[in-house]
Amino acid sequence: MKIYIFRFGHRLERDKRITTHCALVSRAFGACKMFYSGQEDPSFENSVKEVQEDWGGNFTIEYIPDWEKFFNINKDKYYIVHLTMYGTAFDDFAKNFNKTFKKGLQKQKKDLLIFVGSQKVPTAVYHFANANVCVTNQPHSEVCALGVLLNALVDYRTVKFSGAKIKVKPNLKGKTIVKN
Amino acid sequence: MKIYIFRFGHRLERDKRITTHCALVSRAFGACKMFYSGQEDPSFENSVKEVQEDWGGNFTIEYIPDWEKFFNINKDKYYIVHLTMYGTAFDDFAKNFNKTFKKGLQKQKKDLLIFVGSQKVPTAVYHFANANVCVTNQPHSEVCALGVLLNALVDYRTVKFSGAKIKVKPNLKGKTIVKN
Repeated sequence: MKIYIFRFGHRLERDKRITTHCALVSRAFGACKMFYSGQEDPSFENSVKEVQEDWGGNFTIEYIPDWEKFFNINKDKYYIVHLTMYGTAFDDFAKNFNKTFKKGLQKQKKDLLIFVGSQKVPTAVYHFANANVCVTNQPHSEVCALGVLLNALVDYRTVKFSGAKIKVKPNLKGKTIVKN
Repeated sequence: MKIYIFRFGHRLERDKRITTHCALVSRAFGACKMFYSGQEDPSFENSVKEVQEDWGGNFTIEYIPDWEKFFNINKDKYYIVHLTMYGTAFDDFAKNFNKTFKKGLQKQKKDLLIFVGSQKVPTAVYHFANANVCVTNQPHSEVCALGVLLNALVDYRTVKFSGAKIKVKPNLKGKTIVKN
């Protein structure tokens, strides 16, 4: 089962760093690809590519001009989890997902898609999502929500970053970078 | 034991949304206060205050003009955890912290302070920190790292938000806000 992210409603300038952070978090926790809608932004895409050139991996980004069309065509390929502060608890969801849903998806050859809002998310999304999941019911950050959910679904230690030029050797008191 | 956050090196404009997200994540996971250094930014402070007016809680923010002086004077009051991609694994740290360190800190009447970088963090911080902890050894996001670490240290369901005017009632398929 692969993990995809859909970043909805990206805005140039305002969301540049937040969307970049979402993409880097997705990559770090082993997602294979981020789709994004809203305004096309080669600058954010390049920031992520630059990180990947050094740190490795095969994470990709694709701009989707028409998000409704995308979901009309593709939604049955995915089990869609919409991250929203109005949803039900991510930890309960993750427990069920890891125990049972995951095997079901593997049998159906479906992948997981995590839908991350930016601008106001249309009501339709709450309905076509297979699950509306929150990380606390407080307003905070889609970057945090995405990271906390991914961490509950993925063992980050198993994620591979092929072609990395550099990697970190964990250090108690400083920085150690090892060249590959 | 209280949880404090120190956001280091805030930059106006560039970090406005990232620092706001860090503050909101801190609040959502029950931290009591964020100190920040770098450039003073009433606009970010107000964004967080506005959220709190509706959603409740007693989270505060204080600008620290001289971070070195702050730590010279205060560092023994805290057990300092520096979030860095060069550190050791947060989940191993959290396991030990929850099992043993926490009780020790309570006896010593020390609180926890999580140090979150923005601009390049001076080497001194790696040395005065009691622990240098990472959320994966990949470059991603301080907002995510903070959220994932806090989630490993705190049961978010126990956090109270006193004086909230509104709260969310978790919903499988939409948004439900309840007025208090």
